[in-house]
Amino acid sequence: MSETAYPVTPRNRVKRLHERGRYDHETVHAILDAAMICHIAYVIDGQPYCTPTAFWREGTHLYWHGSSASRMLRVQKPGIPVCLTVTHLDSLVLARCGFNHSVDYRSAMCFGTAHIVEDLDEKAKALDIMIDRFYPGRNAELRPSTTQELKATMVIGMTIEEASGKIRAKGVGDEEEDYALPIYAARFPVTQVIGAAEPCPRMPAGVPYPPGLAGFTPGRRLDEIMTESYRTTYGPGQSDD
Amino acid sequence: MSETAYPVTPRNRVKRLHERGRYDHETVHAILDAAMICHIAYVIDGQPYCTPTAFWREGTHLYWHGSSASRMLRVQKPGIPVCLTVTHLDSLVLARCGFNHSVDYRSAMCFGTAHIVEDLDEKAKALDIMIDRFYPGRNAELRPSTTQELKATMVIGMTIEEASGKIRAKGVGDEEEDYALPIYAARFPVTQVIGAAEPCPRMPAGVPYPPGLAGFTPGRRLDEIMTESYRTTYGPGQSDD
Repeated sequence: MSETAYPVTPRNRVKRLHERGRYDHETVHAILDAAMICHIAYVIDGQPYCTPTAFWREGTHLYWHGSSASRMLRVQKPGIPVCLTVTHLDSLVLARCGFNHSVDYRSAMCFGTAHIVEDLDEKAKALDIMIDRFYPGRNAELRPSTTQELKATMVIGMTIEEASGKIRAKGVGDEEEDYALPIYAARFPVTQVIGAAEPCPRMPAGVPYPPGLAGFTPGRRLDEIMTESYRTTYGPGQSDD
Repeated sequence: MSETAYPVTPRNRVKRLHERGRYDHETVHAILDAAMICHIAYVIDGQPYCTPTAFWREGTHLYWHGSSASRMLRVQKPGIPVCLTVTHLDSLVLARCGFNHSVDYRSAMCFGTAHIVEDLDEKAKALDIMIDRFYPGRNAELRPSTTQELKATMVIGMTIEEASGKIRAKGVGDEEEDYALPIYAARFPVTQVIGAAEPCPRMPAGVPYPPGLAGFTPGRRLDEIMTESYRTTYGPGQSDD
């Protein structure tokens, strides 16, 4: 485990089942880098919104695509507070009483101030990195973005000011006196997997399968692929800076 | 498609790619009922939080487990505004330019006012339903909850005041002039599946596999299982009231 950690404050301290809380960069970043989709909470006129979107990490910065918060950000140049959360569901846990039913999971909550990436060059670079972060080497194979496409794309970024990870990985946990009861108890693993590629039927003949997608094999876990893509693109040294 | 629909207001109107927006109960409820985990956004002192949790639907009401919002709710008896979001990732879409890279997905955002279910009987009933909603018939097989367990569990509920569904299911969509380019383009299906049950090693010999879990077969999609469980428990007539 790395010694570098996010500060623990009342905002990010894990309250419920606090023994599951982690604050070190290595744990938090591993949860983030295994995902493509996050949920972002933000507030407009006191009303909270929760929006799913694709995101990616660079060191202790997070970036994502535009959302309804864009309207808010257009007028609030200094930025708005957000909470970006990633959750991996790892199992269903069926215990001997309702109270001990649970799920195994890995989740990370990141707090920061969101701001628009306005500069066109910076935005173009961010979007190129985004593609390669998910699909190593792919950006070089694509038709380059037009200025119009760049202008139509909103990129939002934030520095992670505080973060926490929370992991449950213990499967069935029951009260000692309940284990002898004749009740079925089990853990059902849950994974998110990709299927076989469905090539676009309008592709010209002879287009080769990109080498950067070699790891995208049918049945493979998406969290493993995303972690691998991240490390391929950024290198192991970048994965925890 | 049912004719019953949620009202469309500035709060829930889908802004980005608004042609993907759906407001009818049938579409929104189908997205909700296919899920076990949601993300909930709420605000404490201007700071947004985004928390993952298990949830379930009864008609146009949603219920979920306690979260950090609990502290807030303890002092704000009339309730606090929340946004509950469910997202199913259905595919990765690799197009011929960065701009047209996308994912297929189904998501639902529900707006309402969260309040604590304080009454112990009502809470007990809600938790029994929760277990059966995920695992049909299971509640009757369990060691009954103790009063202490009930008191230690926080159940939060809300009426869906407004909601929107958003669905993308078109796979690769490129600019007409890009289709002829020699660039690999494809859709990779993504599914969340369960694995083989891992029975608790401390179970006594001879405990039978519960008939209510007959649909929990290895490799099956979790969204299909959750939809099936919902309908088994509530019946088809309840699924869209």
